[in-house]
Amino acid sequence: MLEYTPDTITDAVLQQMEQTPDARLKQIMAAAVRHLHDFAREVRLTPSEWLFGVQFLTKVGQMCSPDRQEFILLSDTLGLSTLVNLMHDTTATEAATHTSLLGPFFRENAPALAYGEQIARNDPGDEIVLWGRVTDVEGRPLRNAQVAIWQTSSEGAYDLQIDPSKPNFRGVFHTDDAGRYLARTVRPLGYFIPLDGPVADMIRAQHRHGKRPAHIHFLIGATGYRELVTALYLAGDEHLEDDVVFGASADLVVQERKDDPDCPIPGARSIHFDFTLSRASEADKLTGRVGADPSQILAPA
Amino acid sequence: MLEYTPDTITDAVLQQMEQTPDARLKQIMAAAVRHLHDFAREVRLTPSEWLFGVQFLTKVGQMCSPDRQEFILLSDTLGLSTLVNLMHDTTATEAATHTSLLGPFFRENAPALAYGEQIARNDPGDEIVLWGRVTDVEGRPLRNAQVAIWQTSSEGAYDLQIDPSKPNFRGVFHTDDAGRYLARTVRPLGYFIPLDGPVADMIRAQHRHGKRPAHIHFLIGATGYRELVTALYLAGDEHLEDDVVFGASADLVVQERKDDPDCPIPGARSIHFDFTLSRASEADKLTGRVGADPSQILAPA
Repeated sequence: MLEYTPDTITDAVLQQMEQTPDARLKQIMAAAVRHLHDFAREVRLTPSEWLFGVQFLTKVGQMCSPDRQEFILLSDTLGLSTLVNLMHDTTATEAATHTSLLGPFFRENAPALAYGEQIARNDPGDEIVLWGRVTDVEGRPLRNAQVAIWQTSSEGAYDLQIDPSKPNFRGVFHTDDAGRYLARTVRPLGYFIPLDGPVADMIRAQHRHGKRPAHIHFLIGATGYRELVTALYLAGDEHLEDDVVFGASADLVVQERKDDPDCPIPGARSIHFDFTLSRASEADKLTGRVGADPSQILAPA
Repeated sequence: MLEYTPDTITDAVLQQMEQTPDARLKQIMAAAVRHLHDFAREVRLTPSEWLFGVQFLTKVGQMCSPDRQEFILLSDTLGLSTLVNLMHDTTATEAATHTSLLGPFFRENAPALAYGEQIARNDPGDEIVLWGRVTDVEGRPLRNAQVAIWQTSSEGAYDLQIDPSKPNFRGVFHTDDAGRYLARTVRPLGYFIPLDGPVADMIRAQHRHGKRPAHIHFLIGATGYRELVTALYLAGDEHLEDDVVFGASADLVVQERKDDPDCPIPGARSIHFDFTLSRASEADKLTGRVGADPSQILAPA
């Protein structure tokens, strides 16, 4: 019978997983085991380091709640979420606006708002108009597209961090017949990732600043088109180049303007961005969304 | 500024971790990120698969409690724990008895028992005598070595699964002046890993049987020697070759005997095994134990 060595144990595990009926699960788990073992062999992981890892992942799981998803935060800070986004974009039927992180603060149940309404309540920050069009890749307007917007307060906190029972700084709009969207908000602020959890412990141990540049999240959907999860990043933020979760990207940086002659509301501070969506493919139905609502993740099956 | 691709994102993450002051943490995290990204690229991980993984790991963390460590179980079923053990053994000063899994059922506070005492209470199973010596690699007896023993009932359940408040099937002995240990127990039974958690969901999806062969755990310590965490596996068990956690190994299989003339208790059913310990090195103080007590993992820092 068997007596394993550090080199033969991997094959023994793969062999025991050989009967997995789902071909994709089998492929993913075999790759996960090979890379996990390669990692442990490369660094010659010791028992105490292994234990430290077990403790760390346990803490990450236990920090998760209906209002917080620490594993998504871990994935974000390790660049995995952005890698998955980037690969997802390469599978689109057409070259559309790029994906950016959904992040842990999206909620399904945001208030439905009318064209031009303000998403922020009781915030003294500077009002900014968000405007532009949602089109296909050839510039044809997508009417009645759903445009969900969410962001921090002008002080850098999401509603879920302030008071989960009071939705704020988020709303769901729809485009008009010309594919136009119009929303009002306040200028969001860059912020630190949650500092009271194990991921923040990791970030501090790595001497990383832990900050995200100021940004506004968008989730845009139109029938027949691939759902777009993205975000716009405010030009001038000092952390555009070293976003702790690798979300900021040059093509998603927007400039706030004070007197844009094209802005639908003359004289307003405004941000203009036109989104393009790729036609959906059959495969899109299976690949899902880049991110998740923690309250859904923790819901009973 | 940056616009990442699936190939450049990894370097961006490594660069952001470049300032990590602890050289070993930096090495481990860099390797973890490279292998994690290589895994995702190899399988072209989709958003919905990524989300499934996040949900799975979250459930694993939330299943952990002071009486249960689902992340250790996950590590065990992926062969990582055995790999870490095997590498640990190669770093010993001397070639001693091999390590086997500590498993999730070890407890620091087991009852101290006298030479020859029975560790099982209120169990109708067959009594078995465990006996042998603890020596250095040259066969010199290690006196007053601590020998912690734990196992399942004769029906295959640990005390923590039956009633965590009532320790049973475990005890701590000490060797005599000739390095001998003597304990009584009942014949343990092979068992399924816990079937109500996410790891069991994974095992079922992989069409693995989920069973461990019958075994008896040992944790042996003597001043100046490397602590030995191991287990003895009962010959004849049908799952010696395909232990779901890859713990069973040919050199740790023992044969129960009915009339071993050398057994200290004449006529008893008995299992004989001599353990050898390696002298400790300075490095051993840092590498720690292969496994952990979940109640310690979840204790506040």
